[in-house]
Amino acid sequence: MLKIIKKSGFARRGEFDTVDGTIQTPAFMNVATQGVIKGAVSAYDLKDIGCQVQLCNTYHLHLRPGDKRIKELGGLHKFTGWDGPILTDIGGFQVFSLASLRKIKEEGVYFSSHIDGRPIFMGPEESMQIQSNLASTIAMAFDECVENPATLVYAERSCDRTMRWLTRCKEEMARLNSLSDTLNKKQMLFGINQGCTFDSLRVENMQKTAELDLDGYAIGGLAVGEPKEDMYRIISAVEPYMPAEKPRYLMGVGTPGNILEGVSRGVDLFDCVMPSRNARHGHLFTWEGIRNLNNAKYASDESPLDATCPCPTCRRHSRAYIHHLFKAKEMLAMRLCVMHNLYFYNNFMQEIRNSLDNGTFETFKAKYVELLDTRV
Amino acid sequence: MLKIIKKSGFARRGEFDTVDGTIQTPAFMNVATQGVIKGAVSAYDLKDIGCQVQLCNTYHLHLRPGDKRIKELGGLHKFTGWDGPILTDIGGFQVFSLASLRKIKEEGVYFSSHIDGRPIFMGPEESMQIQSNLASTIAMAFDECVENPATLVYAERSCDRTMRWLTRCKEEMARLNSLSDTLNKKQMLFGINQGCTFDSLRVENMQKTAELDLDGYAIGGLAVGEPKEDMYRIISAVEPYMPAEKPRYLMGVGTPGNILEGVSRGVDLFDCVMPSRNARHGHLFTWEGIRNLNNAKYASDESPLDATCPCPTCRRHSRAYIHHLFKAKEMLAMRLCVMHNLYFYNNFMQEIRNSLDNGTFETFKAKYVELLDTRV
Repeated sequence: MLKIIKKSGFARRGEFDTVDGTIQTPAFMNVATQGVIKGAVSAYDLKDIGCQVQLCNTYHLHLRPGDKRIKELGGLHKFTGWDGPILTDIGGFQVFSLASLRKIKEEGVYFSSHIDGRPIFMGPEESMQIQSNLASTIAMAFDECVENPATLVYAERSCDRTMRWLTRCKEEMARLNSLSDTLNKKQMLFGINQGCTFDSLRVENMQKTAELDLDGYAIGGLAVGEPKEDMYRIISAVEPYMPAEKPRYLMGVGTPGNILEGVSRGVDLFDCVMPSRNARHGHLFTWEGIRNLNNAKYASDESPLDATCPCPTCRRHSRAYIHHLFKAKEMLAMRLCVMHNLYFYNNFMQEIRNSLDNGTFETFKAKYVELLDTRV
Repeated sequence: MLKIIKKSGFARRGEFDTVDGTIQTPAFMNVATQGVIKGAVSAYDLKDIGCQVQLCNTYHLHLRPGDKRIKELGGLHKFTGWDGPILTDIGGFQVFSLASLRKIKEEGVYFSSHIDGRPIFMGPEESMQIQSNLASTIAMAFDECVENPATLVYAERSCDRTMRWLTRCKEEMARLNSLSDTLNKKQMLFGINQGCTFDSLRVENMQKTAELDLDGYAIGGLAVGEPKEDMYRIISAVEPYMPAEKPRYLMGVGTPGNILEGVSRGVDLFDCVMPSRNARHGHLFTWEGIRNLNNAKYASDESPLDATCPCPTCRRHSRAYIHHLFKAKEMLAMRLCVMHNLYFYNNFMQEIRNSLDNGTFETFKAKYVELLDTRV
């Protein structure tokens, strides 16, 4: 259950209790695909950068090092060293982008490992078993991530199948949570709304999903290349049918501007690889906008990445030094920038929460919604 | 001056005062070639891993980002964030291994940048000026690093020229230290003993070098592929001619066993890329010997890298997790292993110092001199 503390229009300031701690929402989940944040950031760095939730990828961890091995080693928390909430994404997007020889059937998906080509079958039950072995705080339902644009006929068939899969996920999760050797017997399950960019299909799918009374609801299949207006329209379309007392998660989103628009439409949780991926290329989020540290003008610049930022990188290192590290191809460049960008995102969410607490969310949004997505 | 606290045979337990702090010797200097330790380790991590001295490379930093830029930015300490002693190696080895079109003349060396091919001239005066701009604690003399094996005739001619260069280095350093806009007016200069593997040439060169009354004396041109017996024999040959009250530095050495042999022959300072380079390939130094973390048996091993090690990596992470990070090609693997190996080296020097303080150095050496260089 999500306890709503304040509202501003559709925007919600909440607290979401989990077995691994309370998540203050709106929140950004920090992406650690293979059980680690790319850029040499460890689980023990996460507290320093204000992370509340770590997000790991079921598909990647199933392949390597293997979910059974992680269970033997005590689960993802013990394995990675992070003791806060962990959400496991099923990695549908990865199955669809990395794997080859994919075949979707009623029972599940047949595909080949992108690492060694070996054949893999994954259905709703297998996905729940893997996530139970990983012992994440929150498991995501097994769904089909349909590519846009899709025909209405295909989208309807896919949604129907995903709905049947969801029922199987719920049953399997209940069974797994009742077993004596399950690591996290209070593992939660979030359903995922699909329906491509067809509003009526999205709404119908959301209504049916809500009937299953799950622990939370995600909106999937967005931020995959469609115009952002479509994304915002769909969020607004399904929002009335998302149970108010449950957390809402917009998958794979996005820029600071996208997040502000999502919050203003009632979303509580976000995740995106953008802050860490862009950081590894020297693209920094700051309160003045997006800065490209590769620009030659930073070679002699003694300022921190962001003049107002108290993150471990900005407290200690200059733009000139980090610019040099990028030119010298030294991996510390990536670490310092990933630390900064993730701190920025987590702190940005804190500022959103503060503005909701103070009743100034609309002013905050108006000030930053375009500025933060603009290049300096 | 080096204050000698204890002795055990030729081994010395000392304190070496510098303008940036006192170095407890014997000490290992941590290699940060381009102003950073490879493997995403920052200057702010160095205290956690027991580092006393950071070693940077004059040649690399002259090319990129440029010593004049570093001077404008306040010197290497401010640039990197490390506030302890810094030694700048001239990078002769790099000039000879990376640079092309090298030509050695009486005035200095002509070569091409390994980055962009532009022609560069560096002589004793230029090297001192660059190191003065970098504002390191200790500058190294400009010398020729002769490849082994060399003829006696070539080695003699090279030593004579290096000796003339050394006189010019000393004069230029004195001039630079007297200038009002010099960042570190107490910059020290170490001379470098050369002479290939010819004992009599080494001794003659050491005697002449000692006459210049420098701040410290290095033994160069060793650990470049010659049998280790040659290295140990040469150290013992020149030791009687190294001023007792000045620090002695064996350049580019080496394994823990090499270091124990060096200390037992009267050496105070060491540096080597081995701990950080090997770490990046998963080869770990431990008190049980050298461990290759890529070995499949570590995939399910919950122990830390070294059972007795209190380093940040061993306190927190398992062999299984770090093994996974290597397989998944995640750069955190390198950071965690570099942190461990450098901690191991720095802590190993601390244990050597403790054994000298306690009068147990010979026992300590006998126990570890072969063990630590042996694969588990």
